[in-house]
Amino acid sequence: MNQVETIGADLGGTKLAVGVVGDGPEAVFASEVSSRGYSQEEVIDLLADQIREAREARPAAVAAGVGIPATLDFESGHAISTVNLDLVDLPVRELLSERIGLPTVIDNDANLAMLAEALYGAARGADYALMLTLGTGIGGGIWIGGELFRGAHGAGAELGHVVVEIDGPRCQGNCPGYGCVETFASGTAIGRQGREAAEREPDSALGLLAAAGSGITAREVASAARGGDRAATGVIEKAGHYLGTALVSLVNIFEPEVIVLGGGVMRMGDLLLEPVRQELRRRALPPMNRTEVVEAEFGPEAGVIGAAALARIELEKED
Amino acid sequence: MNQVETIGADLGGTKLAVGVVGDGPEAVFASEVSSRGYSQEEVIDLLADQIREAREARPAAVAAGVGIPATLDFESGHAISTVNLDLVDLPVRELLSERIGLPTVIDNDANLAMLAEALYGAARGADYALMLTLGTGIGGGIWIGGELFRGAHGAGAELGHVVVEIDGPRCQGNCPGYGCVETFASGTAIGRQGREAAEREPDSALGLLAAAGSGITAREVASAARGGDRAATGVIEKAGHYLGTALVSLVNIFEPEVIVLGGGVMRMGDLLLEPVRQELRRRALPPMNRTEVVEAEFGPEAGVIGAAALARIELEKED
Repeated sequence: MNQVETIGADLGGTKLAVGVVGDGPEAVFASEVSSRGYSQEEVIDLLADQIREAREARPAAVAAGVGIPATLDFESGHAISTVNLDLVDLPVRELLSERIGLPTVIDNDANLAMLAEALYGAARGADYALMLTLGTGIGGGIWIGGELFRGAHGAGAELGHVVVEIDGPRCQGNCPGYGCVETFASGTAIGRQGREAAEREPDSALGLLAAAGSGITAREVASAARGGDRAATGVIEKAGHYLGTALVSLVNIFEPEVIVLGGGVMRMGDLLLEPVRQELRRRALPPMNRTEVVEAEFGPEAGVIGAAALARIELEKED
Repeated sequence: MNQVETIGADLGGTKLAVGVVGDGPEAVFASEVSSRGYSQEEVIDLLADQIREAREARPAAVAAGVGIPATLDFESGHAISTVNLDLVDLPVRELLSERIGLPTVIDNDANLAMLAEALYGAARGADYALMLTLGTGIGGGIWIGGELFRGAHGAGAELGHVVVEIDGPRCQGNCPGYGCVETFASGTAIGRQGREAAEREPDSALGLLAAAGSGITAREVASAARGGDRAATGVIEKAGHYLGTALVSLVNIFEPEVIVLGGGVMRMGDLLLEPVRQELRRRALPPMNRTEVVEAEFGPEAGVIGAAALARIELEKED
């Protein structure tokens, strides 16, 4: 039998990446276009066009998976709400499968990153694992008994919206919560805390950067910390304190074998990982306090890999 | 075929209840003895004796389930640690099944309460449900896809140790955490807050009770609140604020169909349920903010019912 190929599409707020993947994580076809500024209708057109193009390049591809940064109903393939894109209350799966002419599944981008890591990456071999993707917000994925767990209708696994401070600040975007870990340890939050630290400590490397007119984001905080700047390492340690506390709740609940941290913020590597691990060792119930916390193996390509893998898994279920 | 009967035993810090249950929640045999002050060896003897007695009464019973208030390794049947009993690092299942001569399973008491509610009670028919038992501490049970979820080795589902206040007070017993929901909304915590309120407000019903020499526990807080005492309702509303916040994290993670609240504290009924529900409606992500929160149908008998049901389920798996 020939190797089965499936199409994976990863729709983000700024770009759409599409790939065709065989029996493993390597793409045999890849494309990338901007997704910025499209209306709801135009985004669906863009997705259909790019997936059709991938199919023309690899005619043997038998199914498509699409990752979108949204709360969604997995069973119906319906997007409920998104933060960075105009996809509200839209039957994405139905619209796409009609136009593409292939079995299509959609899922949340963080679930797909979890799937990629569980099948091919840092959680390979684990039956119980969690993933947090640290970017603009914090996404979550849950791996239980060799399958993604999404809640009753696929809207769960929102691990960025675990509350760590009961009377903390209002959360971002469409979340009505207060004190969610996303408000303390996302890239957005770390950038904001970096700007506050720059103001508080004008003589720090962060302060000098700000005075020189440089914008301060999580990226600048990371490079200043790598250079040994105390203001910047303080910001990262504080984010680690909050993120580690969320992981305390999560390991007490799930007793996972491993927690994988991914997303752009993880370019910080051990600068963030170490305070997170310390918090977990110190505060979680035994034996959960020994849970491994590791960096993701995949970067931005996780979305395409996971989406293609999901398309294959769902197709096999139907057989 | 004759109806299958199994034995359920529920070991608590003060008493041991044993029952024999058929195909439903009704016990056809029941016994109860004190478990207070027994050493580790004596508790095992007591369990074996009481279970043997149940078997003599119902010779057709084919397996036994035992609930213990402990962190345990479900696969090996090993108790790791307990708060109110002397059961540390002990192969309870092995010790018992040898003496009883029946297939034996052990599990955490809160898991068994979840099982009883999912099979016969307030979560009947649900595929995804959570249970919190509010007593001396707060126990947790997780029901996913028609099965108990216990984590990688059966030590998870510690829903009382979800952190709600990052720099909150040190947790109780063997938990090294800070700001766990158990420190704010368990019976112990509500009693403590009741005593503090009595001191702060000597003219309140709680204050007068304390002045009259009555001990203040969660029970006194509940009856003063039922009588309309503002100090007491304030204590319960505050506990509801914390408990509701823990449920916000839990519904964002699990997207369950229903959350069941049980244990002695739930004698407070709507006095506690209403503030909990309000918090959930206000702070959880949609659609999870619509999750039902209901009172358990079973009281203290949940342990025996769940233990007997677990014995049957595990026996059927082996067939």
